[in-house]
Amino acid sequence: MLKTQFQEQVAEVIKAVKSTNPMAGSITNSVTINLVANAQLAVGGSAAMVHLPDEGEFLAMAGGATYINCGTLLPIYEATLPTVAKTSHDAGKPWVLDPVAIGIGTLRTRLLLQFKEYKPSIIRGNASEIIALAGLWQLEGGTGTSNVRGVDSTDAVLTAKDAAISLAQWTGGAVAVSGKVDLVTDGKTVIHAKGGSHFMEKITGAGCALGGVMAVYATSTTPFVAAITGTFAFNLAGRAAEQNAEGPASFQVHFLDELYKLTASEIIDAPFEIEEV
Amino acid sequence: MLKTQFQEQVAEVIKAVKSTNPMAGSITNSVTINLVANAQLAVGGSAAMVHLPDEGEFLAMAGGATYINCGTLLPIYEATLPTVAKTSHDAGKPWVLDPVAIGIGTLRTRLLLQFKEYKPSIIRGNASEIIALAGLWQLEGGTGTSNVRGVDSTDAVLTAKDAAISLAQWTGGAVAVSGKVDLVTDGKTVIHAKGGSHFMEKITGAGCALGGVMAVYATSTTPFVAAITGTFAFNLAGRAAEQNAEGPASFQVHFLDELYKLTASEIIDAPFEIEEV
Amino acid sequence: MLKTQFQEQVAEVIKAVKSTNPMAGSITNSVTINLVANAQLAVGGSAAMVHLPDEGEFLAMAGGATYINCGTLLPIYEATLPTVAKTSHDAGKPWVLDPVAIGIGTLRTRLLLQFKEYKPSIIRGNASEIIALAGLWQLEGGTGTSNVRGVDSTDAVLTAKDAAISLAQWTGGAVAVSGKVDLVTDGKTVIHAKGGSHFMEKITGAGCALGGVMAVYATSTTPFVAAITGTFAFNLAGRAAEQNAEGPASFQVHFLDELYKLTASEIIDAPFEIEEV
Repeated sequence: MLKTQFQEQVAEVIKAVKSTNPMAGSITNSVTINLVANAQLAVGGSAAMVHLPDEGEFLAMAGGATYINCGTLLPIYEATLPTVAKTSHDAGKPWVLDPVAIGIGTLRTRLLLQFKEYKPSIIRGNASEIIALAGLWQLEGGTGTSNVRGVDSTDAVLTAKDAAISLAQWTGGAVAVSGKVDLVTDGKTVIHAKGGSHFMEKITGAGCALGGVMAVYATSTTPFVAAITGTFAFNLAGRAAEQNAEGPASFQVHFLDELYKLTASEIIDAPFEIEEV
Repeated sequence: MLKTQFQEQVAEVIKAVKSTNPMAGSITNSVTINLVANAQLAVGGSAAMVHLPDEGEFLAMAGGATYINCGTLLPIYEATLPTVAKTSHDAGKPWVLDPVAIGIGTLRTRLLLQFKEYKPSIIRGNASEIIALAGLWQLEGGTGTSNVRGVDSTDAVLTAKDAAISLAQWTGGAVAVSGKVDLVTDGKTVIHAKGGSHFMEKITGAGCALGGVMAVYATSTTPFVAAITGTFAFNLAGRAAEQNAEGPASFQVHFLDELYKLTASEIIDAPFEIEEV
Repeated sequence: MLKTQFQEQVAEVIKAVKSTNPMAGSITNSVTINLVANAQLAVGGSAAMVHLPDEGEFLAMAGGATYINCGTLLPIYEATLPTVAKTSHDAGKPWVLDPVAIGIGTLRTRLLLQFKEYKPSIIRGNASEIIALAGLWQLEGGTGTSNVRGVDSTDAVLTAKDAAISLAQWTGGAVAVSGKVDLVTDGKTVIHAKGGSHFMEKITGAGCALGGVMAVYATSTTPFVAAITGTFAFNLAGRAAEQNAEGPASFQVHFLDELYKLTASEIIDAPFEIEEV
């Protein structure tokens, strides 16, 4: 595809979400749950968060897509997360996986192993998380060990390129690696996108919010375009917000405001490169 | 009652809460729990949130009123919520019910059915939630099915009028339906109140925060006046906040600031109509 | 020690944390979990929050220090909290205890009793919490009953002085009592520190955030200096934030921004007195 074709598709989904207010349910961590919901509302979506298995199943069927973030696991999530992933998969509904904290604890590892067969439509993480997930699923580009702290430098994103491509080829969906230069791939094409702000690492939950917003966009387009749209929106809103920020907290306020104000026509300002693999 | 009589009672409770700093405990959802607490503090109250049954029972007895919001249920809430509701009811302490997400999941339905006999002093929700609760409790004006997404247009609020009146007559307390024109009733009188901001639907938890604030006011006046006071305060603070907001996040910051700055004498600016039924 | 010696050590740890980005894991309450994480990031640390026992154990070993706040207990915390406290203690890793809501519920009492032998490196609370904990642990200066509401006046802080000293002598660490004039002691020396803002009682979680930030600083210095550093940082950031605040919500935004901007050289502006006991 040409750059303009991507831009047109991205502009279209931004517009569609603003006019249809689609619902994307979430099972997500308690640290950033409020930010995820507010980011989903800011782009025009509707949010709903639950903890229990039957409620997650309900949302997976009622919503256009579902976001699963495996931070701050609760005991009940042993039942909830596989139920929601399986329901989404079997119903052909898109779902987004954020493998936060991969490598910490036995429940998380068991859950992430189960998710392999439910093929998340979008996987979003930083470089170390993506590499660790590919390793856990025994795909090319992965390693069996995880860097708990995560690294988000430019180099780190590129080191996850093979893992991202392997994961996308396995799921048939998209994989997004967040960092200074973001990488989004469907296993055939790789998008390298710039923008955002250094403040995004100084607030908790920018990545979670991005995953939640990708789920909102996934209600209205392909996983690949949804992942690109979320990435572009965050890069543009982050860049604009930084200009008026005095620190991380005012950055977050400006960021959500900018996300809300972002229009389809501004997407042409999001810098990116296309690479075929 | 005359308009001025309502205004006097509302002004009185705003002043009383600011000077006595009353505590209202909450069992509420994890998405908006921080906003609920901060809104309760902003109006002059004191906040305390718990998850466990004996802690909820303690708060119900120690506080002047309790707020129960049934979003993001946890397994332990099967024990906690009925304990708190029963404790409040049996002790003659006011408690506020926010039947968020009514219709989703079996536990929520079981809990909401149990609440019927514990007669919440205030029920606060949007039109579809109020109609669904009246239906669940087999009262006039209700339907057995719920619109999960909720609708908050002017019309929607009025479609919930019969349900709201039935619920208030059953509980002997007050029912508040949030929307473009809010409706608050004690089963005999209906207040129609205007104000607020379109941004209130663009942040998560405006309704939850209102429920929490009504609980704070319910420590210091009748359920009906508490529900009206919360509604007026949110309408005035929302209107003022919108004037300086660039988007939903800065709106939320201004909104809490305005809630904090709101004084008893400004209540005369809250537009409302009285209807006897 | 002389005032200048304290100031040098405080300046050093502020600088060290900014350059090494140390990780302090937390098990903390759901009301203020987001603020705790953002405050930890603002001072230059790295945050990670979990609920499950093996995840807490992992963080205790992987991080430089751990923060345990016993608000909003979940059933699983009966296993998680003692595991994390014991792991930290046995490994000689610093950990911070925030005995929020001491006196409410049986689980909290059982947990706080167990913590006595795991000797938290820093205990942070308001006067009534510190007195109640000393009472629970049968140390001098404590009482067996707790004032649930807490009091944060100047007098209240001084009434907790004996309890704070007893606790610090028992743990061999530091105890910080938050209030208008904060008190920090290692059982031998008492620091009385001024500053902050009246708005800190009008937002939920200023105390929790302080505990989390003390854990970040405890990764890089002694418990006593870590507790003093956190106290000075909050006093300076609070004072600066109040100057531009319109209310509690804008105060919180400015506060986190100021915490982020605070540099080692500004610590000289934090007013305090030293008392030897």
